[in-house]
Amino acid sequence: MPEPITGPRPTLEAVAARAGVSRATASRVVNGGAGVRAPLVDKVRQAVEELGYVPNHAARTLVTRRNGAVAVIIAEPEFRIFSDPFFEQQVRGISRELTAHDAQLVLLWVEGRGDHDRIARYLGGGHVDGALAFSVHNDDELPALIDKSRIPTVFGGRSVVDRSLAAPYVDCDNRGGARQAVQHLVSLGRRTIAHIAGPLDLTAALDRVDGYHDVLVDADPELMCQGDFTERSGALAMAELLERRPDVDGVFASNDLMALGALRTLRERGVRVPDDVAVVGFDDMPSVVELTDPALTTVHQDIEGMGRLMVKLLMRLLDETGSPAPASVITPTSLVRRASA
Amino acid sequence: MPEPITGPRPTLEAVAARAGVSRATASRVVNGGAGVRAPLVDKVRQAVEELGYVPNHAARTLVTRRNGAVAVIIAEPEFRIFSDPFFEQQVRGISRELTAHDAQLVLLWVEGRGDHDRIARYLGGGHVDGALAFSVHNDDELPALIDKSRIPTVFGGRSVVDRSLAAPYVDCDNRGGARQAVQHLVSLGRRTIAHIAGPLDLTAALDRVDGYHDVLVDADPELMCQGDFTERSGALAMAELLERRPDVDGVFASNDLMALGALRTLRERGVRVPDDVAVVGFDDMPSVVELTDPALTTVHQDIEGMGRLMVKLLMRLLDETGSPAPASVITPTSLVRRASA
Repeated sequence: MPEPITGPRPTLEAVAARAGVSRATASRVVNGGAGVRAPLVDKVRQAVEELGYVPNHAARTLVTRRNGAVAVIIAEPEFRIFSDPFFEQQVRGISRELTAHDAQLVLLWVEGRGDHDRIARYLGGGHVDGALAFSVHNDDELPALIDKSRIPTVFGGRSVVDRSLAAPYVDCDNRGGARQAVQHLVSLGRRTIAHIAGPLDLTAALDRVDGYHDVLVDADPELMCQGDFTERSGALAMAELLERRPDVDGVFASNDLMALGALRTLRERGVRVPDDVAVVGFDDMPSVVELTDPALTTVHQDIEGMGRLMVKLLMRLLDETGSPAPASVITPTSLVRRASA
Repeated sequence: MPEPITGPRPTLEAVAARAGVSRATASRVVNGGAGVRAPLVDKVRQAVEELGYVPNHAARTLVTRRNGAVAVIIAEPEFRIFSDPFFEQQVRGISRELTAHDAQLVLLWVEGRGDHDRIARYLGGGHVDGALAFSVHNDDELPALIDKSRIPTVFGGRSVVDRSLAAPYVDCDNRGGARQAVQHLVSLGRRTIAHIAGPLDLTAALDRVDGYHDVLVDADPELMCQGDFTERSGALAMAELLERRPDVDGVFASNDLMALGALRTLRERGVRVPDDVAVVGFDDMPSVVELTDPALTTVHQDIEGMGRLMVKLLMRLLDETGSPAPASVITPTSLVRRASA
């Protein structure tokens, strides 16, 4: 058994050396083997196998258009993708930017862990030049699978500290945006400010919790309720908060959909917004904000722009002209004041 | 210049004959060329080029898992796909059935004609074993591109008569379902029955218009308004109908979303449903029906089941064990009576 390969990606030179052939021959075999005698083909293929060499099609293809395709992998089940406008907006930005690079977008998603092997096989099959992955949860195996496939990848969303991936990510300043939201509620004179958090296995949700605590260091733990970024969970969390702390006078919801749900609960209970309770969301998603009554004060992030930026970073990853690998990018957020706070 | 290839797909035997090599040699070249001398490789590749031979990876791959992937191509822009729950439901059925076959779903869509070349290149690139295409409009170039790529494909939606494709399709009995809807309104004693049609470049919409006319042979043309399957277009069409024919007492909308829009207009005008105007939709889409007030009477079609059926037909297309190519399937519809009619 060959030793497991760790460290940097094995090179074609290493394959040639192990097979005892020239680099040119190794290259021809890796590219199909045409014109190479069968015994040499076998030797090179064995070396490829033993070293775990993966031909870097990706780097060439954006030049040679071998695949001309980029996978967008959303680590969420299909019902979430189609019901949360966040994904639509991010995919729109990605789609437009990929079109500008004449690359075909192929969308994949993950219904559950049972899909991982199949997705890994697909990524390992050399059908795409690169990948963009988002909504990766902290315990998700997906980053490891992507890493193993050696497909150049850019992530949407900050990775957790202990994820040892070199892949760059694009995220907004979740923590700073949350601080802006809570500081605004404080500046309005609100004293009992609750937080409806998102799923705590997503760094975006965690960072927004941290931003809330940056401003309200001694916040009563009863003032935090967890949702799952859906409207329904926001409505339920608001009901729970009103039960626990009837004196609540400000709410920062971790996304606009949960703020929409919270507003529904407040309206149903006859609680006036913003007079009795001021509400601030996060995202500034046009399709959600236009549904809210009163109009939602929220933290703006440029979701479509972040999608475009992910593509731009990927194009730099795929560009092997010697330019350094791109660094991760955190984009700024800004508070948009409307009627709800 | 070689003559353009028409008629049946060129075989590997034809390639071998043209190149003057054995079938085994031709096969090795088509599969990468390993172990074949360079001059022969060139001859075979030239024959492949001249004959327009496309290796039928697809047939093998569902056995050998060469690609293990199936493209789902929706001939609609991204904003339509994410806003119309019809697509979500169909994709859900497809996704589940593909998972059962351990095949990876990759979703593609078409923002505009500018995308056609890129999609054709992708399909021609041999990255997928088969394709499922839906929402194809009658003037759409997509079927011709798919045909040219020789990727085994099943269409969602009946093809227009003059489309010379052999590819099978799955559709529901749009015309029969429309007849059920209109007959129900007639049986309720409605005398002035309007139709809000869908986009007339889609066979589904055309067939539903035909079903309306089957029952109401002499319907006043003023009683038909065209929408585009969105809620907004249904609301506008209803307003137009009330303007034209204030005596309207029944409406058959070509899909549930447009029925939802029509109900909104009727409510805003203070018109009682079903007392003054009875409304029937088409689709029986749970996520739309649950929003309607009163509950929507509609024509049920098994959208998710149709998605699954498309996959099953594709698997039979990809099965080259000699079984005959599958025929197109029309699935039945049924009227679901609720409060709106």
